[in-house]
Amino acid sequence: MTSAPNLRLINVRQPNGDMVHLSIENGLISAITPAAQASSTPTHTQSIDAAGRLLFPGFVDAHAHIDKSLLGLPWYHNEVGPSLTDKIDNERRYRVEQGIDSYTQSSHVARRMINAGTTHVRTFVDIDTEIGLSGFDGVMRMRDEMRDELTVQVVAFPQSGMLARPGTVALMEAALRNGAHVVGGLDPSTIDRDPKGHLDTIFDMAARYNVDVDVHLHEPAELGALSVELIAERTAALGWQGRVVISHAFCLGGVDDSYTGKLIELLLKNDIAIMSHGPSGSRAAPPVKRLHQAGVRLCAGNDGIRDTWGPLNMPDMLLRAFLIAYRNNFRRDDELEIALHMCSYGGAHVIGAQNYGLAVGSPADLVIVNGQNHLEAMIERPPRWLVLKGGKIVQSAK
Amino acid sequence: MTSAPNLRLINVRQPNGDMVHLSIENGLISAITPAAQASSTPTHTQSIDAAGRLLFPGFVDAHAHIDKSLLGLPWYHNEVGPSLTDKIDNERRYRVEQGIDSYTQSSHVARRMINAGTTHVRTFVDIDTEIGLSGFDGVMRMRDEMRDELTVQVVAFPQSGMLARPGTVALMEAALRNGAHVVGGLDPSTIDRDPKGHLDTIFDMAARYNVDVDVHLHEPAELGALSVELIAERTAALGWQGRVVISHAFCLGGVDDSYTGKLIELLLKNDIAIMSHGPSGSRAAPPVKRLHQAGVRLCAGNDGIRDTWGPLNMPDMLLRAFLIAYRNNFRRDDELEIALHMCSYGGAHVIGAQNYGLAVGSPADLVIVNGQNHLEAMIERPPRWLVLKGGKIVQSAK
Repeated sequence: MTSAPNLRLINVRQPNGDMVHLSIENGLISAITPAAQASSTPTHTQSIDAAGRLLFPGFVDAHAHIDKSLLGLPWYHNEVGPSLTDKIDNERRYRVEQGIDSYTQSSHVARRMINAGTTHVRTFVDIDTEIGLSGFDGVMRMRDEMRDELTVQVVAFPQSGMLARPGTVALMEAALRNGAHVVGGLDPSTIDRDPKGHLDTIFDMAARYNVDVDVHLHEPAELGALSVELIAERTAALGWQGRVVISHAFCLGGVDDSYTGKLIELLLKNDIAIMSHGPSGSRAAPPVKRLHQAGVRLCAGNDGIRDTWGPLNMPDMLLRAFLIAYRNNFRRDDELEIALHMCSYGGAHVIGAQNYGLAVGSPADLVIVNGQNHLEAMIERPPRWLVLKGGKIVQSAK
Repeated sequence: MTSAPNLRLINVRQPNGDMVHLSIENGLISAITPAAQASSTPTHTQSIDAAGRLLFPGFVDAHAHIDKSLLGLPWYHNEVGPSLTDKIDNERRYRVEQGIDSYTQSSHVARRMINAGTTHVRTFVDIDTEIGLSGFDGVMRMRDEMRDELTVQVVAFPQSGMLARPGTVALMEAALRNGAHVVGGLDPSTIDRDPKGHLDTIFDMAARYNVDVDVHLHEPAELGALSVELIAERTAALGWQGRVVISHAFCLGGVDDSYTGKLIELLLKNDIAIMSHGPSGSRAAPPVKRLHQAGVRLCAGNDGIRDTWGPLNMPDMLLRAFLIAYRNNFRRDDELEIALHMCSYGGAHVIGAQNYGLAVGSPADLVIVNGQNHLEAMIERPPRWLVLKGGKIVQSAK
């Protein structure tokens, strides 16, 4: 990483309301002093007066699909059918027909993410026997080019099925050998029709390549709960506690309260994290507040951003926090805090961002916006006044 | 209304994609010509080149509570309890303690609405035995002052209960005598504990003051369905078809499919409209697409905007259309159109806006924004480039 110049941010408001000055050296926060305290900026250090604006740690999008976004392209007229396989088949067909380029699209979305204050993203990249590793290669190229501006973690993801589509496992292994950070799974019962086989294969890859696991689980109610149980068993057997995420996990809101309680116990025992992004629609979704209060680790992401699946998601984690709050009917301050946490510290923990936060020694991955209050900022969603990555200014609307 | 100068808008893109020029005379759209066609602007007429920007009819917020918004005040630290009565009691107490002024707050929210392109609003004003008509008087004063910029329709609304709080009916009648346009009801079984008595009283006022009816109905499942049936009976008995709205109507999504079908038949037979704003949370909500396809008239609104009930709603009908789409899991273009329709033509029909729309002879209540596509605009939500009310420029970000 190229070294960013030293910098001083004066008069920024921390999430607790305190006004402080922040010193940044070698890309890290080197000092935090109360704004009331007189202090001088060393010569040769650039100083920026934030005039009381709000300071956030860089946002963490822990679940995106940036290889297949259509953002920046002409409006996609969506006439897709209602089922999950309608959407998967429609996408695979469209992508080939239109020659959607993973590198171009993921670069575009990454830029929009950075502009919105995202400093870390975990992205799922489709791997299948039609496109092979072309999507993966495009995202890895973007990742290398943008490494000073955005930390990108790549999941090898069998969107079109894995066991049901022979040849996919070999491609996923190739991606893992070539730098994918995480192995992804998908609806073991409803897509591959073989929950044991699917999850055994995923966890086997996790062990052999020493990577974390992140499983998309749309399966509802008791069917999804079976997958949660099978994932927990394999997490325990492999000693993979703290290294497994279940994404979406609609089933946690779709079984009765006591069964949800049992599943929560399994998640806690095996330190399995849940990704929930405040899904669209009315279907059951994880009870975020209950999970948080029980101590389950939570994260969030923008999922598919303006793609053939649907047009509604945008690459903005303040909007995502708002949607989590909206979908969970959050009204109280302490509830809104949960949504913000999922989009920052929660996600940082899940993807393993080291020393993440607003402490001395943390990387200077920072967002500054107008506003009187951090919670209000997720509702007003002002333009990002300043975004820093490793102390480097990567977005400025000053 | 003061007369706005004549105006010509050139190169605006209609919702069907056509580029046109629009002539505005005496506050009305006087001509629409294809942009390809050569034409000249008469001398002494101001001309604005929209350069292909998107044209919408003014947005209609058919369900707001602007008298009690806290928008513009310091952040309200919300620690309210979970029940409906918690929220009602907390609000009544807070409003008195803090001296929240209806005129000031409603003026502030109205200005924000106008800036976001809303040209018509139906607002529910709390009337109770503590604050009497002070909230109502403040909104009516705002309404008179802003009549050139925003059409405001006022509902006399017994937020804290009506029969359960003796004296409320007399206050509501005073409001109706003093210019309230609509009589409002609220959860006949769960608040007043007397569905027959509540609705008889509401419809009796409607008949005596010759006003429309708009009933808040949060009651779930079969309990709410009872209220729908009772409302339909009274609509038929009074010949009030086309003059009744049921707002929220969560029960339409909370009973089984065949029962929903029967309720839809009742709504159609009595031409009762439904207001649904894509509610927060996961509870059952009206199946908007099914209702629309069945021919039930639909409208939407921003409901309580940043008040003691919750902080999430903002006075922006493009955001509202997005939230309706999100809550209903809309993905296809034809689905997104329903959400936009509810926030424009649907609401205009419900509140009785005459000649509303983008036709010759319509009032020049118009919104122009940047963008390539009208559906995309509800997702990108650009600043409103130009807003006109009766041909007068009321917001400009040019």
